[in-house]
Formats: sequence, C-alpha cells, structure tokens
Amino acid sequence: MSQPFLDTLARLHTEKNTSLCVGLDPSINALPTGYPHSIDGLIHYCKDIIDATHHAAVAFKPNLAFFEVLGIEGLKALESIRAHVTDVPVIIDAKRGDIGTTAQMQARHLYDYLNADATTLHPYMGLDSLGPFFEYTNKFNFVLALTSNPSASDFECQPLTTGIPLHSHILSTLQCWHQRYGTVGAVVGATSNKLQSVRHVAPDLLYLIPGVGAQGGRYLDALAAGKNTQGLAIINVSRSLLTAVKDKRSLQNDIQTTLNHILTL
Amino acid sequence: MSQPFLDTLARLHTEKNTSLCVGLDPSINALPTGYPHSIDGLIHYCKDIIDATHHAAVAFKPNLAFFEVLGIEGLKALESIRAHVTDVPVIIDAKRGDIGTTAQMQARHLYDYLNADATTLHPYMGLDSLGPFFEYTNKFNFVLALTSNPSASDFECQPLTTGIPLHSHILSTLQCWHQRYGTVGAVVGATSNKLQSVRHVAPDLLYLIPGVGAQGGRYLDALAAGKNTQGLAIINVSRSLLTAVKDKRSLQNDIQTTLNHILTL
Repeated sequence: MSQPFLDTLARLHTEKNTSLCVGLDPSINALPTGYPHSIDGLIHYCKDIIDATHHAAVAFKPNLAFFEVLGIEGLKALESIRAHVTDVPVIIDAKRGDIGTTAQMQARHLYDYLNADATTLHPYMGLDSLGPFFEYTNKFNFVLALTSNPSASDFECQPLTTGIPLHSHILSTLQCWHQRYGTVGAVVGATSNKLQSVRHVAPDLLYLIPGVGAQGGRYLDALAAGKNTQGLAIINVSRSLLTAVKDKRSLQNDIQTTLNHILTL
Repeated sequence: MSQPFLDTLARLHTEKNTSLCVGLDPSINALPTGYPHSIDGLIHYCKDIIDATHHAAVAFKPNLAFFEVLGIEGLKALESIRAHVTDVPVIIDAKRGDIGTTAQMQARHLYDYLNADATTLHPYMGLDSLGPFFEYTNKFNFVLALTSNPSASDFECQPLTTGIPLHSHILSTLQCWHQRYGTVGAVVGATSNKLQSVRHVAPDLLYLIPGVGAQGGRYLDALAAGKNTQGLAIINVSRSLLTAVKDKRSLQNDIQTTLNHILTL
C-alpha cells in the first residue's frame, strides 16, 4: 500500500544510501562563532546545517520544545526553518498524545498548522489518544516504545504477566495499528542493548532510533540492529552534529568531517 | 513542609468550600451568541468564564492544545487569559514529558515563559523525563496515572508480574517521588470505577480528577472517592460548564445554574 511518508523515505534511502535523520535542537547560547546570539542567528544556523547535511539526510527532526522555550519568536523561527526544507520529510519531535478532542487539536497544530510530515507520540493513554494522529493518511507517527535513558526501567521495561516487558507489548500493538492505519512507527533507542532483541517483536514496523553519536550509540550498529523487513530505519543524530561546528566559516567542513565519521562507525 | 501550590490549594479549599477546577478548552466555532467568532471573542469569553466561576474555583486549567491550534495568535490569547487570573492557581494542561535537555526546555516554556503554576505530564519515560519539572519547588506536576478513556486498557491497566496493574505501580512510584520533591501529584479519571480502589495505593498523593460532568462522573462521588489524607482533590469540569452558556447576556446566570447543579451531584 502506498503511503507518502514511507514512499519518500524509501526513495531517499535508495538515492542517498543513508538512513540519517538530522535532529535540530538549537540553543541561542550555544551558537558557533560567526552567528549572532539571537533568534535570527539561530534561524540562520539551522538553515546552514540543513544545507550542509541535505545530501545525506532522509529526514530532519526539529525538536519543538527548543523553539517553544523561545516563545512566539521561537515558533516563528520554526516556521521559517520548516519552510526551508522542501524535499526531505520533517519530523517535528513533539511527544504529544491526549484523549479525544485534545488529540485532534494537537494533530491539527502539528500537521495542518506547522506542516510536519511526522511527529512523535506518548503511548500511555492508548489508541484513543493516538487515533486522531494516525488518521492523517499522508503523515507518519513514531510512538515511544523503548528509550535510551536510564529511567526507561521505571515503567517502559516493567514485566507484564504475559511474560513480556511493557515496551514489547507496546511494539506488537503498534504493529497491529500500523496494519490498520498505515501511518504508525516506533521510537526505539540506539544505546539500549535491547535494540536487536526488540526488533523481532514488530519486524515490519519502522523505527526512529535516537541515541547515536553524543549519546553513545553507533550509526552502523543501530542500522544493522534496527532496520525493518524492508531494510528501513531512521537513525537520528543531533548533538554530535550540532556541536561539531565551531565557526560559521568552517561549518561545511566541520559537518562533512563529522558526517564521514558518524556514517562509517 | 510548606509548598506554594499545595498551601494555596488548601487555603482556597477552606475559603471557598469547593475542590472545583474550571477547565478552559475553548473553540472559536463554539462561542456563545454575543461573542464574535474570532480570537478576541475567545479571549473575552474565557475571561468572562473566569470572572463568573472565580468564587467557586480552586484552580483554572487552560488546555494548551486548544490555544496552540490557533497558532501564534492563540498563544498570545493564552498569555492574556493567564494574566487575567491573579489569585487562583493556573494548571496549564500540556501533557509533556521528554528526556534530559528537552524536558528542561518544556519546563522552562511552561513555568518560566507561560507562568503556569502547575502542569500535566506523561509518565512513560520515567524520572529522567519528569525530574526537570519536579525540581521547580514552587510549581506542581500532575502525572498521568489512570485516565477515563476506554483505551486506558491498552497500556495503563496492563497487569504487571508483581500482581498490580501498571497504573498502580505508577501511583506508588509517584508517591515516593512526591516524598522526595514535594511537587508531584497524579491525574486519575473520575468516570473510572477504579477511582476508589486506587486511592489507597497512594493515600497522600493529590489527584487531579477529570471526567466530571460531560464525561459522566459526578462531582461529589469523585470528591469522596478521590480526596487524599488531607481531604484535598482537584475535580476538573470543562465541557459541561463551557457548553452551558448559550448567550453572552445570560452567561452569569447559566454558569451559576450549572455550578449549583454540578457541585451538588
């Protein structure tokens, strides 16, 4: 079945021979030399990062909270940055999810207003809280399953009476929902040694895999362990790319050196 | 131990003799006769609702998604409405939660930028994703535990090998975290017949209880079953109040009639 997000991803994967997603978590205080420490500097920096990684990226992932914290000017910046990306999917990392009408409002905000191609969602409240997102047939939704932070053990890894941990129950449920809606994937962390073991739980599901680079995971390991039956995965790299740039004048070179390093590890 | 949000709540509960939270989920298309169908109309309507319920409310709960969906003008509206509430806590219902730096950005957006007194959070990623909120010692955090939607059974109610459902494990963990941080409560739905049975799991924890009114729960039942060892609970009513107003000219009367009805059921 044809699905716009998945079709574009498969095409870009073939054309660019990568599974790289470039995360955009910018901070005004951490902008490299050569960019003014202002919203304009932040916008300019993000657009330069997009231009410098475009040849290798199958997706861009702006982190909504990093723009929201700047208030209304931050949201205008996100709109400008989003409009700068024309032919690569944009995953707005929002971690939303709520029941009924509220989920509809969240989905309209992300998909209609901000024009995201995909987003990230919390599974906790179940299908009622996710369905309004899943029903956008031309969008795609990555639902949290197993994350790479230490306190994933608090709830995500709790063993159920059926003999599997909660995150595996969520993954198999997501695969069922994907069969029904065609718009469902999962977030599964790369630094977890469980990535390989949870792949078989939902073999067809597309995984968005954070945790590569600064968080300790390796791109090629994550790809080998995390790709689905179609050979697809989305491996996100944020901090190790953003912090590689020391100066606006060396951006192109700093990014390419870091990309070469990341994509061969 | 003194805590600003809890102290204010206890004082207002004594002064007003209610546990009512007024939810603000406004929609331009659903504004009563007499309000222009515009952002200005929406702001005016919300402020009128606040003025008409202020004598009975221990909290106001604007639903962030209903403002976000209106874009930048919607966020300006929320700021204006928030500034209209001066001496009653404002819970900005945001359903956030993410790891590390992102949670810090989310917390700064809600607590520093939007000046919320409290918010709502997803538990899924554990303490890493909640700690940055809990550390605001003068704010308060309601973490989702048991919600009143049918698909709460998908994940929230899954039985763990320890013999308790996931939501009960989350509630007892939240009570531990509240002992440590002093800023933690839970969201527990009123229409669930489990409200009474989960009260004993975390007897000291403050519950924010949605689902009263339009969703079928009764205020007095929710209060009796949901109050903590200090006699406190926050019972939220949104739709049944907002939809009670048919005309701007009858707002005061429509609200008072509905309040009298809700608070005695």
